[in-house]
Amino acid sequence: MKIFVYPGSFDPATKGHIDIIERATNICDKLIVAILVNNNKKPTFSVEEREKQLKEALKGNSKVEVTSFSGLLVDFMKEINATIVIRGLRAVSDFEVEFQLALLNKNQNPDIETLFMITSPEYLYLSSSMIKEIAMYNGNIDSYVPKCIKEALEKKYVK
Amino acid sequence: MKIFVYPGSFDPATKGHIDIIERATNICDKLIVAILVNNNKKPTFSVEEREKQLKEALKGNSKVEVTSFSGLLVDFMKEINATIVIRGLRAVSDFEVEFQLALLNKNQNPDIETLFMITSPEYLYLSSSMIKEIAMYNGNIDSYVPKCIKEALEKKYVK
Amino acid sequence: MKIFVYPGSFDPATKGHIDIIERATNICDKLIVAILVNNNKKPTFSVEEREKQLKEALKGNSKVEVTSFSGLLVDFMKEINATIVIRGLRAVSDFEVEFQLALLNKNQNPDIETLFMITSPEYLYLSSSMIKEIAMYNGNIDSYVPKCIKEALEKKYVK
Amino acid sequence: MKIFVYPGSFDPATKGHIDIIERATNICDKLIVAILVNNNKKPTFSVEEREKQLKEALKGNSKVEVTSFSGLLVDFMKEINATIVIRGLRAVSDFEVEFQLALLNKNQNPDIETLFMITSPEYLYLSSSMIKEIAMYNGNIDSYVPKCIKEALEKKYVK
Amino acid sequence: MKIFVYPGSFDPATKGHIDIIERATNICDKLIVAILVNNNKKPTFSVEEREKQLKEALKGNSKVEVTSFSGLLVDFMKEINATIVIRGLRAVSDFEVEFQLALLNKNQNPDIETLFMITSPEYLYLSSSMIKEIAMYNGNIDSYVPKCIKEALEKKYVK
Amino acid sequence: MKIFVYPGSFDPATKGHIDIIERATNICDKLIVAILVNNNKKPTFSVEEREKQLKEALKGNSKVEVTSFSGLLVDFMKEINATIVIRGLRAVSDFEVEFQLALLNKNQNPDIETLFMITSPEYLYLSSSMIKEIAMYNGNIDSYVPKCIKEALEKKYVK
Repeated sequence: MKIFVYPGSFDPATKGHIDIIERATNICDKLIVAILVNNNKKPTFSVEEREKQLKEALKGNSKVEVTSFSGLLVDFMKEINATIVIRGLRAVSDFEVEFQLALLNKNQNPDIETLFMITSPEYLYLSSSMIKEIAMYNGNIDSYVPKCIKEALEKKYVK
Repeated sequence: MKIFVYPGSFDPATKGHIDIIERATNICDKLIVAILVNNNKKPTFSVEEREKQLKEALKGNSKVEVTSFSGLLVDFMKEINATIVIRGLRAVSDFEVEFQLALLNKNQNPDIETLFMITSPEYLYLSSSMIKEIAMYNGNIDSYVPKCIKEALEKKYVK
Repeated sequence: MKIFVYPGSFDPATKGHIDIIERATNICDKLIVAILVNNNKKPTFSVEEREKQLKEALKGNSKVEVTSFSGLLVDFMKEINATIVIRGLRAVSDFEVEFQLALLNKNQNPDIETLFMITSPEYLYLSSSMIKEIAMYNGNIDSYVPKCIKEALEKKYVK
Repeated sequence: MKIFVYPGSFDPATKGHIDIIERATNICDKLIVAILVNNNKKPTFSVEEREKQLKEALKGNSKVEVTSFSGLLVDFMKEINATIVIRGLRAVSDFEVEFQLALLNKNQNPDIETLFMITSPEYLYLSSSMIKEIAMYNGNIDSYVPKCIKEALEKKYVK
Repeated sequence: MKIFVYPGSFDPATKGHIDIIERATNICDKLIVAILVNNNKKPTFSVEEREKQLKEALKGNSKVEVTSFSGLLVDFMKEINATIVIRGLRAVSDFEVEFQLALLNKNQNPDIETLFMITSPEYLYLSSSMIKEIAMYNGNIDSYVPKCIKEALEKKYVK
Repeated sequence: MKIFVYPGSFDPATKGHIDIIERATNICDKLIVAILVNNNKKPTFSVEEREKQLKEALKGNSKVEVTSFSGLLVDFMKEINATIVIRGLRAVSDFEVEFQLALLNKNQNPDIETLFMITSPEYLYLSSSMIKEIAMYNGNIDSYVPKCIKEALEKKYVK
């Protein structure tokens, strides 16, 4: 059974993330969306909120499982007995950071492989931080995030 | 009448910014320098100081108007009835961020167009933050900023 | 009057080119599509064919004029009394070549300004050469080129 | 069953190609190495020679099948009933071309997915053309190509 | 006598830094490793600790001298009568920042030259910040830092 | 004695090349300009012409020696007992090719080191091929090439 792990902050998830997840589930048998708990950054949504949002947004997809982890990705992968990481690429700057992370993870554990997919053109310009800024000023975010996340953002930034 | 909007932090404006403004005014009928008020960042100069500096540096140019805005650029553009954004490009990293912003703004409002100009070679390596660091240590900044901004920086970092 | 010159090979024009032309005509008073006659390369379509194709594809747009030139762009610009070049950007590699050309043209004639627009996301991956390869093998090119160019390509590559 | 297709020129295959193939076979059930027959380019080795070389270099790997195709990749994929393309990435310039191809192929057939793997650091600087130039001048290519390809290159460039 | 200055934060030094230092000493007569004291950032290791670590890691190399400086690099260079800066390059993003710094330093003092070396492939993916994160979670860092720095990191992050 | 080798096609040399040579001679004891004889490309100027041009353009600089070589750079370096290559960098695309070549040369011979310098801003946009195209159409090339090369180009492209 091919298990893919899709790690990220998802603070919040965008339609770009959902697109990668949907397309990746056509290739693997099971996809684990793994929310990284980063104690150094103050997130907009708590891990519990993000987990709930992702489960809601992906509820039609039976191959997807949503969970969270802290510490090193390679340790989490070992714990759940998975070896394949999936990541989306939007731009050259993405590519360089991902390149560095993929090589580092492989060096930590040679069994780990990272696979990349190109983000669909209509989502190429999306980032969680920009979407939050637009939401903060009541801009239209309908085409950037799933409905449940749109509502969560509106609640968060309500005056 | 073609109105260009040139948004930015201008904290402070460099000769690279002034170069883009001067060259862009040859193409448009009116250029609005729009200082972004970002409440999340503590600027070196207040909005009022930056507005005063830019007015002084650009006072010979009758097509230029200096103002400030907070919130989303697309909302500010609508308010002043403008549709054309002008931005300078220095490097590949600039290009990627600008690319993302231009597509996002166009998605928010399809009437918005972003035009880019290449920064002149002699200003390619300038950034407001580096200039401030040089000024802080009494380095020579004559060729990086207009005279009035040079004086403001010297006053700011005087021992 | 603001005249934009849009130089290129257009062998053949793609919907990406048409997109830049349509959007640029919202900013200028007149846009001259200038087909570069390059004697070193054997084109797929003759200059006359390309001129006819572009005229057909753009016939609804009264601000557009289609013509051709050989030699240096700066000389052609002087001849028609224009100073503003418009170019589309798709990717980082585009950016570097365009960057070099824009600085070189400005060095040849300091009055020349080059403005860039970002290609719309749905056309980011288009290039004339790839479209020709797809046409050659009877692939579907409906969403890549205007109808008249699609027909010209089919005729060209008919068995 | 997950079938990956690895298309390329392989003129000749390098250890970088072999590395991608070996690592990809850990993820898929079957990997088809598909040599592109490009009638516009005069290859160094014929399709038959390249097929023989790849079969020899990969003979221990039971999941691998070597074949060739001409025409569009999407047509070949349909013919063999495969939907997943695998490609290696070495550098930013690779990334841009691959990005364009992946989006174009997906546009031609939305079922097609392209997965990317990062080339291992020790093979990052390898390219078939540079290896051929080194072989031509009797440079040492032991660490760049499999043994059978080394011998084929030496034979090819013998004085 | 050719003196090279290698400035950096070295918080802590990685094997990538040591690699550049070792290779650069084959070219110069003396190499000064210059630890930048940046009062705006809270380092992981104090300047004294970093100086001690680098001296320990480089003790076999008689051409190397380790020191620290605050303020502008160009002022430090003048003080010690040196004109050649050496820097390592890992990736495109490095290149752009280094490009900007090299041009700025040369503008501050035209006698200053910056020389770049490419980081060896096995160290391309290393960065001080990622190594610290791995150390924090007890990951294996043997191949990323010299022994004395490994011990210092383990002490720092002991539970 | 530190000997730098500066390899290239120099067909013809630009002021960007001359700038790198002049600056590099401040760092080394001797700089060998090594014209690559590439039998696969038809050059604009013969090796003899290029050698004569470079000697003329650099005649004031006693540290410079101009010569030519065919075959692999590493073999030429061994023959003249040199280990340090010097190269100029203009842009990201330069960087990637140079990165590949530097690693390949070091792999061929671990004693070889490649040092890079950033091209001065005023020469960033120069390339031999673009200069030739401008010369061909009688454009002004005074600020792009040394006087003797300007004359050679004018002679070459005279009607």
